[in-house]
Formats: sequence, structure tokens, C-alpha cells
Amino acid sequence: MSIQVYGFWRSIASFRIRVALKLKGLPFEETPIDILVGEQFEPGYVAVNPERVVPTFIHDGHSLFQSLAIIEYLDDIQPKPRLLPEDAKERAYARSLALMTVADAHPLVVPRVRKHLAKAFGADAHAIEEWGKHWTIEGLATYERLLARRAPAPFALGAEPGLADICIAGQVVSAHFLKIPLTDFPLVAGLADRCFAIPAFKSSHPFEQEGYKTASAQH
Amino acid sequence: MSIQVYGFWRSIASFRIRVALKLKGLPFEETPIDILVGEQFEPGYVAVNPERVVPTFIHDGHSLFQSLAIIEYLDDIQPKPRLLPEDAKERAYARSLALMTVADAHPLVVPRVRKHLAKAFGADAHAIEEWGKHWTIEGLATYERLLARRAPAPFALGAEPGLADICIAGQVVSAHFLKIPLTDFPLVAGLADRCFAIPAFKSSHPFEQEGYKTASAQH
Repeated sequence: MSIQVYGFWRSIASFRIRVALKLKGLPFEETPIDILVGEQFEPGYVAVNPERVVPTFIHDGHSLFQSLAIIEYLDDIQPKPRLLPEDAKERAYARSLALMTVADAHPLVVPRVRKHLAKAFGADAHAIEEWGKHWTIEGLATYERLLARRAPAPFALGAEPGLADICIAGQVVSAHFLKIPLTDFPLVAGLADRCFAIPAFKSSHPFEQEGYKTASAQH
Repeated sequence: MSIQVYGFWRSIASFRIRVALKLKGLPFEETPIDILVGEQFEPGYVAVNPERVVPTFIHDGHSLFQSLAIIEYLDDIQPKPRLLPEDAKERAYARSLALMTVADAHPLVVPRVRKHLAKAFGADAHAIEEWGKHWTIEGLATYERLLARRAPAPFALGAEPGLADICIAGQVVSAHFLKIPLTDFPLVAGLADRCFAIPAFKSSHPFEQEGYKTASAQH
């Protein structure tokens, strides 16, 4: 099978599917789309992804969008190791945890939102960073409360890492970007430590991507 | 089976699960949590939903969160009529369409975000409305481009309404709140017309809820 991904080193949604692909041992090629300079708006890419976002996932010529839909699809085409539980209630819990960052915390801190804050409200770099910290901390606090109700054992749903862990780890990546200490979120921090001890997570972290190294070298 | 929902008349996520429950003919009780006045932060509700959002779905005493996870769960416990396709690629497409509002457009216009714009940037009511219009139009435009690539026949994935249609209809509810004309989005408008001709959609619209009628009577 041939898998191609359009992603970006800094994109947390790209991070999520990178981890999922690596956990499943599926080889893929990642083509960078620099969403900071606006490559997602170029006609060639809009033809690939009409939403003009990353990631796009292409499997044997068939395009899919949205990291959560892509991870669910990966579980369909390569069921082992499973990233979503077989039990319906457990699967719903995994999706609930996933969506707390995918649908609530993360959408508020992506580049298009940061740019629009500057344009609409004249927000400066400091104010935009504070905005990002606010919503990232909200997401971390939500996860801390959820993990306090059901302790990781050692991962969010049990013995093996899955969809929920990938998404919580992605929320922790947001904290890394913004240098937010995890002191107030010990359960989240512990879960993330266990995730990032796994090569599939560690090697997928934005700071481990070529694009990050190139961007850092330029500054 | 006993189904209880904590929702709010204005909540588009509550709208989505209301439609799903009604399409499946599942009876439910909805308890209102007024997220405009902050009832979601009261300790009694936080014990129910640690994320402090609506909706919460309770099935025989088991709580679930996040509208998309809830709709997927409904398809598990009551497979007919199916809201997600059986084919893996089609299911992924349905989820992709769903997430364009659930994970991208809608999170930017919810009350907690509008309130934080006022607090963080001193945004006034007009500026917050413009913010809402900007992101709601972005979501509508994304759907119009997607539906142009694959025309509704007559619903987003085929003959029957499903998850994608529920989510696109929810994006149109955002447009209704903000009085955004759909002139530039004819494919979306046509799809929404077909959806809202169905009682399950029509009776779930925020403007059809008791809370809306009460709120309108007060102004």
C-alpha cells in the first residue's frame, strides 16, 4: 500500500497521524506544506485539500482529511495494533478524550486563528501568546480532571497507547511550544512521559522534524 | 433503555445529538444547562461533565461527552438507520466532513471563546459578531468547495441523511444565528433545505426549542 501525507513539522494534527502511522508500522512519505507562509492556499494544494489545511492523507490515490478521521481509517485498514478499543463504551470514551483537544482546545491556537487575532483585534505577539497559553492550559486542565476520575493504567484506556493518548500527547506538544510547565497537571505529565518514551511518539514530535531543525538554524 | 441529555437550546453540539437521536427514534430527556449564564461551571454539573461543556449524554447511567463521540456511539447501540456508512472510505469521508465544523469552524464561535475575546482584547459586541461571521463563513465556504467536488445525491453521502449532513446543517444553524445569507453557498443551502424538511432536523433547530422561545419572550 502507498501512503502519502501532506503535513507540517509544527502541525499538531500532523503529529497525531505521524504517531498513528508509526505505531502501526505503516511506511509513509511526508511532503511539507508550510502553513506559516501560506502554502496551504496555493492552487496546487487547494486542489488536493479544499479545506486548505494540513494534514491530507492519501492512500492508494484516495484522499482523506482531518486527523481524527484519518486515524479511525488507519484502524480500519490496519487493525493491529488497535488504536480504538473494541468495546463500544470504551471506544466512545477514547473518542471523547480525543475530541477534547481536537474539537475544543487545539482549534483555538492554530496559525489561521493567531493571524486573525492580529488582523481583527490588532493583537500583538505577546497578546497572541497569552491567548494560546490560556486555551492550552484549559485543555491540559480538562485532561487532568478526566484522568483524576479514571487513572491512566498506564495509558488513558489501559495497557497500550491509543487514540486518546495520541491526542493528549498532542495537547502536551502545545504546552511545549508555549513553554507551559506541567507542574499543575501531574497526571497529564506522567501520561505524556510514558508516551514520549515510545519511539513512535518521540520521533513524531515537532521538535524532531527536519522542518524544525531548518527553522531553528535560520534564527 | 434510558437516555438523558444535558444540553442547551443554543448549543450546536446539542442540536447535532438531538437530530441523531430523533433520526434513530430514540426517546430522550433533555435537561437544560444555560451556558450563557455559566451553569456549566456549577459544581453539580462539573461532577457530571469535567470538561464543563454541553452536551453530556447519559445512557443507562453511563456518561459520554463530545457530540461526535456520542453520535458514533448511537450508531453502535442502535445501528438503524445508520448515520455512518459501512464502507471504510465512505465512513472516513463522512467523518472528514463532520470534523470540518466540529474541529475547525464551530469551536471558534462558542460562548467561552466570545467571552474571552472581550476579556483578552476588549472586543465589543460588534467585533465579536464579525469574528463569528468570519469563521462561520469560512466553514460554509469549505463545505461549498467540498460539495462542488462531490455533489449531494441528495445528501452528502447519498440517499439518506447521516453524520455529515447533521454537521453541515449545524454549520448552517451558525449562519442562522448570525443572519448570514447563504447566497454564495448554493450547494450548502440546498443540502440544508433538504435536511430541515425532515422533522428530526426541523424540530431540533435551536429556534424550535423551549429555551429559545423563553429567551425571545424576555427581550
